[in-house]
Amino acid sequence: MSATTPPNRPVHAPQNGFPVVDGCLQVGGISLHRLAHRVGSTPFYAYDRQLVRERVRHVRAHLPAAVELHYSIKANPMPALVQHLAGLVDGLDVASGGEMKVALDTGMAPQRISFAGPGKSEAELRQAVAAGICVHAESEREVRLLARLGEELGVAPLLVLRINPDFELKGSGMRMGGGAKQFGIDAEDAPRLLQLAAELELDVLGFHIFSGSQSLKADAIVEAQAQTLALALRLADAARDPVRMLNIGGGFGIPYFPGEAPLDLAPIGESLAAALPRVHAALPQAQLSIELGRYLVGEAGVYVARVVDRKVSRGQVFLVTDGGLHHHLAASGNFGQVIRKNYPVVIGNRMGARQGESTANETVSIVGPLCTPLDLLAERMDLPEAQIGDLVVVFQSGAYGRSASPQGFLSHPAAQEVLV
Amino acid sequence: MSATTPPNRPVHAPQNGFPVVDGCLQVGGISLHRLAHRVGSTPFYAYDRQLVRERVRHVRAHLPAAVELHYSIKANPMPALVQHLAGLVDGLDVASGGEMKVALDTGMAPQRISFAGPGKSEAELRQAVAAGICVHAESEREVRLLARLGEELGVAPLLVLRINPDFELKGSGMRMGGGAKQFGIDAEDAPRLLQLAAELELDVLGFHIFSGSQSLKADAIVEAQAQTLALALRLADAARDPVRMLNIGGGFGIPYFPGEAPLDLAPIGESLAAALPRVHAALPQAQLSIELGRYLVGEAGVYVARVVDRKVSRGQVFLVTDGGLHHHLAASGNFGQVIRKNYPVVIGNRMGARQGESTANETVSIVGPLCTPLDLLAERMDLPEAQIGDLVVVFQSGAYGRSASPQGFLSHPAAQEVLV
Repeated sequence: MSATTPPNRPVHAPQNGFPVVDGCLQVGGISLHRLAHRVGSTPFYAYDRQLVRERVRHVRAHLPAAVELHYSIKANPMPALVQHLAGLVDGLDVASGGEMKVALDTGMAPQRISFAGPGKSEAELRQAVAAGICVHAESEREVRLLARLGEELGVAPLLVLRINPDFELKGSGMRMGGGAKQFGIDAEDAPRLLQLAAELELDVLGFHIFSGSQSLKADAIVEAQAQTLALALRLADAARDPVRMLNIGGGFGIPYFPGEAPLDLAPIGESLAAALPRVHAALPQAQLSIELGRYLVGEAGVYVARVVDRKVSRGQVFLVTDGGLHHHLAASGNFGQVIRKNYPVVIGNRMGARQGESTANETVSIVGPLCTPLDLLAERMDLPEAQIGDLVVVFQSGAYGRSASPQGFLSHPAAQEVLV
Repeated sequence: MSATTPPNRPVHAPQNGFPVVDGCLQVGGISLHRLAHRVGSTPFYAYDRQLVRERVRHVRAHLPAAVELHYSIKANPMPALVQHLAGLVDGLDVASGGEMKVALDTGMAPQRISFAGPGKSEAELRQAVAAGICVHAESEREVRLLARLGEELGVAPLLVLRINPDFELKGSGMRMGGGAKQFGIDAEDAPRLLQLAAELELDVLGFHIFSGSQSLKADAIVEAQAQTLALALRLADAARDPVRMLNIGGGFGIPYFPGEAPLDLAPIGESLAAALPRVHAALPQAQLSIELGRYLVGEAGVYVARVVDRKVSRGQVFLVTDGGLHHHLAASGNFGQVIRKNYPVVIGNRMGARQGESTANETVSIVGPLCTPLDLLAERMDLPEAQIGDLVVVFQSGAYGRSASPQGFLSHPAAQEVLV
């Protein structure tokens, strides 16, 4: 930064997952330089399977053993990555017919796959009933449709009600519960729909209560989980059938921007463990589950683009890369951010002696090849002086990266993906 | 809106391009209901070829005949639409190797196709030289590379220098000139690169000066064009070769949001006509051109999605459609907007007696099927009461719609496209 920037400005949380050897970042144990040759072209996303494994282990180490862990495919639907996770977690959550196919192809038991999301089409619901996966109904229409489709197909639908709670996850990046929402069934409307389901002879297995996502505050998650469990107990009173499934959502965030710190799982695990005896006493058949997407894969992935041109315009240095907004919308600041901030970005082949210690010797902006000023991967960051051919790395890119980006914009080639 | 909303709140500019017959919107002379059956599935984008033709005629009626009109494919690269425009305009502008292919496939003469954009790859530049299209070089690297590729291929490259001007288009949606930018060659650096081109025995055909886009202020465009022409005359003094091509950019905006009014072309055309004699006297061989993307196609297109569910959550009505952010990122407010505003949206099969007069009888939010609160097509708009199966129409969707959206997000089907 310039000399006017205060020396104690916020910095990015350290990236400890990817070692540096001889000044070059290693992903999946392979030097970035070699990995780029292996992939065959830039830009690409690379996901480190060992980091995913370690992250699942980390979550399990903190959560009570009685709580199952599900992976939300929407965070990253790459089939090889979903297959890898299928062997590590207890279930998969899908949000469309397309994701359902990816989940089923892994061989995960259908009853361990759940399908949530507003506006499910009749075709999708038919697929879900036929597959025997668990549908999280979000409206009266879906409940009625499931009853009809179950009859048509001669299959008893696996049904959970998704609830829009009467509270929200405070300070989360995305509030998805509380207030008026398109997600789920308002908590106060649940008794009516439980009654309807009973009339339609549908077996309601339980509830899915999701209050928000991308929270870095353990206290807020602890509070939301306590409210979630209390709400589940109230809802159970209105249910004809015993609660067998209770999905308490996710919400675990990862640090993206300067000043953000990793989420501490310890208080969350402790609080859940303390609450479980009461839940088990009241709902003895209930299997609790937590669903995580971003938290499991986000920090295990990097986006890699190559410097194509280096320009100095009116005193400012621009690195123009072959990647950008069309591959990584979130890093460009155009995906739900009000004020654009930089993701952690490095020059992967100029990492200095140790990561985090690279000598910053110029202030650069890193842009892509699109004809729009929105196409910005890093704005005025301190980085080692880079040259054409160097590899720009955007960390924290394992979730909501490639699949959440407008790949067709300006008809550039799509980003490759590799699991290493 | 609620009773607390002031009655004189800003409204959307009227949508006059699409007639209403029997309460149903017509696109390309076909009722929306029938068109949806013809396309075979929702959601889809529909572009009206007659409206595009009329828009080109409108522009030509205002611009001096000596100014050529180019279409910027990046606004909408649908091949059938580009083919349609190829028969109406004087040239096509491309921003990638992929767009170059679409442009060449129309049969447009290669020298009437121009390729601008930062960070062109060597492969793209080689394609461009081989095709005989005109390259707008944006850096010293590109000038040097063109010289080498021209030698390798035995073809004299058609070269124009893209200039980052020393001014900007005031009040534009996207500032692309002035200050430090990744676009083009700083105006003050152009003499050096003209000298370099001469040393490399490259013939520089002229200049491309682009200062911004999406402006609704004729005054600002008039001022920017005057500055552009003045800059071109200064640059010409430093050029060895006569200026034969002078692309003065575009920047014409269309009204998206409440309170915005259509751009008045009359003062722009008058100002240009008044300036031309001086330009022709100084640069007798210069062919002027203007490039427009959004302005030619943006208002000719609609995005159509079907209502899949209708929900009332805590007193608010939500229409859940089969389309959303993944097809139309800009309408969701996540593409360069700081504060989200509604695009003009209607229920296409409930248009009332006349367009603009439909009786608003409820306040609704229109959302898509994605599990994110960002997936919002209309927030608390006054619309006729809609039911499942109805067709939601987002106007002003002919540019930066489908191609600028993350179609793969959550693995829902892609939007169809039709030119009618």
